[in-house]
Amino acid sequence: MPNPLDFYFDYSSPYGYIAALKIDDLAARYGRVVRWKPVLLGAVFKVTGGKPLPMLPLKGDYAMIDVARSARFHGLPYRQPSKFPIAGQAPSRAFYWLDDRDPVRAHELARALYRAYFVEDRDISSPETTADIAATLGLDRNAVLVAIGSEALKQRLRQETDAAIARGVFGSPYFVVDGEPFWGADRLDQIGRWLATGPF
Amino acid sequence: MPNPLDFYFDYSSPYGYIAALKIDDLAARYGRVVRWKPVLLGAVFKVTGGKPLPMLPLKGDYAMIDVARSARFHGLPYRQPSKFPIAGQAPSRAFYWLDDRDPVRAHELARALYRAYFVEDRDISSPETTADIAATLGLDRNAVLVAIGSEALKQRLRQETDAAIARGVFGSPYFVVDGEPFWGADRLDQIGRWLATGPF
Repeated sequence: MPNPLDFYFDYSSPYGYIAALKIDDLAARYGRVVRWKPVLLGAVFKVTGGKPLPMLPLKGDYAMIDVARSARFHGLPYRQPSKFPIAGQAPSRAFYWLDDRDPVRAHELARALYRAYFVEDRDISSPETTADIAATLGLDRNAVLVAIGSEALKQRLRQETDAAIARGVFGSPYFVVDGEPFWGADRLDQIGRWLATGPF
Repeated sequence: MPNPLDFYFDYSSPYGYIAALKIDDLAARYGRVVRWKPVLLGAVFKVTGGKPLPMLPLKGDYAMIDVARSARFHGLPYRQPSKFPIAGQAPSRAFYWLDDRDPVRAHELARALYRAYFVEDRDISSPETTADIAATLGLDRNAVLVAIGSEALKQRLRQETDAAIARGVFGSPYFVVDGEPFWGADRLDQIGRWLATGPF
């Protein structure tokens, strides 16, 4: 059984959105599965000194152009959210709650949440909005709300974020494939080569 | 006559090295020429708060892996220089001196300097070393040394760097194609699409 790919992302990350809509298909082409790991980049940035894109002089302005163009390059819809960045606790906890029960549906939920934020401009930092989106997939709206507010899921998200930092994750999207780190939606091509040929 | 592409780079930038060995061929495929603009990222970072790769926690360690892998991905030789980063004044001034006389040979010199630094581990921040490399291309070694030390070329490099900052350049490599900005060697694919199809 080949190794799974690890995929770290933050729900405020537009490049994470692009990667989220591509990585499962890419991995499946080479018989691989992907473990999705939403994390809180805010906690990561406390360690790395990193900052959200809009706070970076020049680079922030460029990123707004680049994100939209990169989405078009990959054939994906994109609309810059009116509230950006947002706190990722609600969608991340909802994801881990479902992932323990049904990873395939959890990936569907993760993509639906990303689309809601980066295409439909819905504020998924709100537990109510995240639960509404989960309900459209047939999930129990109330169970999602309970999970988002639970101590167990709060703890889980903190642990996953700490584990990501310990592993060297400093941005989103970030991948680990057979122990090799890849950062950025623009490394999907190198990941594809790696999966096709092995280490290069 | 189609617009030329503008290509901004710093001699300490490993991703600039990758781009430098690719961009002229890519542009030529679509009947375009490239204007090369070496700049001093140190001056840029004073404005943007940016830092050289080795100073960035986690990201710096990752970059060392990613640069070497990206070079292999593009089929280019690469060896991490023992002195990194370096000051780019000498090679940048030598470039502008030659570019005013013979842009085609100036691009050859620029690539030779980049190869000397990122493949042969030669310290091109030294005017003597830069002049040695220029001499291997048949250029007048002494004229290169005089140019590197001249007030006119010092001034020229400062002006080019200021103009780049005014245009929004914040990293290396940075391209402007028909008014559209592209940052990073990993945007060569999007530049190729742009040149092939026009704005997308």
